[in-house]
Amino acid sequence: MHAERFAKTPKPPYYAVIFANQRTPSDPDGYGAAADRMVELAAGQPGFLGIESTRDADGFGITVSYWESEAAISAWRAHAEHSDARREGRERWYEHFELRVARVERAYGGPAKAGEGA
Amino acid sequence: MHAERFAKTPKPPYYAVIFANQRTPSDPDGYGAAADRMVELAAGQPGFLGIESTRDADGFGITVSYWESEAAISAWRAHAEHSDARREGRERWYEHFELRVARVERAYGGPAKAGEGA
Repeated sequence: MHAERFAKTPKPPYYAVIFANQRTPSDPDGYGAAADRMVELAAGQPGFLGIESTRDADGFGITVSYWESEAAISAWRAHAEHSDARREGRERWYEHFELRVARVERAYGGPAKAGEGA
Repeated sequence: MHAERFAKTPKPPYYAVIFANQRTPSDPDGYGAAADRMVELAAGQPGFLGIESTRDADGFGITVSYWESEAAISAWRAHAEHSDARREGRERWYEHFELRVARVERAYGGPAKAGEGA
């Protein structure tokens, strides 16, 4: 079981921040510590719903965080320690990233095999 | 450079299908071939905009595909070969998955360092 890798989100609508990124090879320890700290900090923010994150051996990662509202995303963006980490990210940790903010309209999980429903 | 890992999407709004999944250990060759085929097939569908995908050594993956409209997502969902692959996925390849359909409202890329703009 790997249930802890999946976000436990409520019924839509809610919001997703999709962050696709390519790590530089530099500063793995500093990056790892900051990434852990950002997850811990985000989880304590009002409106945080959950996070899913993975990265392959080539350093290409996707992190999706889920939020109750756009206002919750804006408040997290304005958090001072998060702003500092984003600046470090732009300067040292990310070769490139794409960030998208999206409104989740519908969602389902699985596997639901034949006969277990839609 | 890893530009080919990032989707080249237009100005929002458009749609994202966020697929978080935990692979079973079974059938890596069959899964890999089917995954490659699905990307190839999706890329030829009307309304397909791009795809970003990664998976860690524990088999936890996130794939985000981008589409012009909900109608394009529905048409891809109804594609016979894709339906067959989804059934195989539920039966053999995925221990668990969560799928979310979301409307992308805003997006930006980076790094934009200090002095390079917002």
